Amino acid sequence: MSKLRVHTFSISLDGYGAGPHQDQDNPLGVGGLGLHKWLWGTRTIGKLFGDGSGATGVDDDFAARGFSNIGAWILGRNMFGPIRGSWPNEQWKGWWGDNPPYHTPVFILTHHPRPSITMEGDTTFHFVTDGIHECLKRAQAVAHGKDVRLGGGVATIQQYLRAGLIDEMHVVVSPVLLGSGEHLFNGIDLLKQGYQCSEHTSTPNATHILITKQK
Amino acid sequence: MSKLRVHTFSISLDGYGAGPHQDQDNPLGVGGLGLHKWLWGTRTIGKLFGDGSGATGVDDDFAARGFSNIGAWILGRNMFGPIRGSWPNEQWKGWWGDNPPYHTPVFILTHHPRPSITMEGDTTFHFVTDGIHECLKRAQAVAHGKDVRLGGGVATIQQYLRAGLIDEMHVVVSPVLLGSGEHLFNGIDLLKQGYQCSEHTSTPNATHILITKQK
Repeated sequence: MSKLRVHTFSISLDGYGAGPHQDQDNPLGVGGLGLHKWLWGTRTIGKLFGDGSGATGVDDDFAARGFSNIGAWILGRNMFGPIRGSWPNEQWKGWWGDNPPYHTPVFILTHHPRPSITMEGDTTFHFVTDGIHECLKRAQAVAHGKDVRLGGGVATIQQYLRAGLIDEMHVVVSPVLLGSGEHLFNGIDLLKQGYQCSEHTSTPNATHILITKQK
Repeated sequence: MSKLRVHTFSISLDGYGAGPHQDQDNPLGVGGLGLHKWLWGTRTIGKLFGDGSGATGVDDDFAARGFSNIGAWILGRNMFGPIRGSWPNEQWKGWWGDNPPYHTPVFILTHHPRPSITMEGDTTFHFVTDGIHECLKRAQAVAHGKDVRLGGGVATIQQYLRAGLIDEMHVVVSPVLLGSGEHLFNGIDLLKQGYQCSEHTSTPNATHILITKQK
């Protein structure tokens, strides 16, 4: 059974998954990049974006898990880019350059239709306008039995959490304060939704938590 | 200068400092005792409540810091007991038996006056009805230059945070979910209040964070 999984989703000590004032210069809001400091030095990220170098160890193990057995991705529209409202043209193709780090079909939730985009490295962006359930169905249909990774952001994860559709979530608490922004768990009763903390590991850089839905 | 310090204040992964439905059987709300699992095995707690045995190490070091150079305590009324509204009589003398673990004057914020209570072991409970500023002033006046420890609970800490009066806060993120209850940082912009994360250490049991106010 294909699972819906969230990985390497970093939040601040005060619970924010993104800082305030998101725009093209601050895709994760002011201060938001600090959430992912633990991730950038890992070998997994070095392989995806750099020369393959980087640290191994617990942080890297968690980063690597997020790419294991993934057949498709789902992203909220604000994770794809800074443009809000209808697409002014078809120039914006994501934050990641010509060869994005997905290498699978990627389904982007939006209210505004747009033709699919084929990128280098087997990444295809599809734009889905008929809601989270249909989006998951489409992603699972092309995942060839593998799991679907939900990339975020906060609003998209909250929608899927409320609908009870996320099977597991790797959340990382980073040692930063954001003060305001998008709060990941606000207004969501994870216990009532059937989630439990099934794993808890800390490194000098961050605290890794695995939250899984009990069947 | 006498500081106002919070120590060993434990919150869940979803940010709650107490679970829902607090009463005499569940002083920290349903599931709330799980927040302090990291603390109960430490030597510091063994000395306060037991035969002096218990584990040393990072968790214990943090627990011990909370009792170092403390000349007075402040508690919210709900930390003192489960009774709400006016005091029906003077029988309730706290959760802690005849010899409470404070051994200093303890100032309890309440809207309902009550005579002070002298306990064994140099603990005296004073009931303060004229607000958080006056309460801090009275605590500092008897602390003999030592610091004042603010015990909690969540609502009391939030009042002192909003007033900018807390100098440092040791917060512990425990690997449990509570789902609902009293959220420690909800609606408080710690960055705007001038706080920064100045220390971050993890153990297999919990993540310790020190948040300090920048002068």
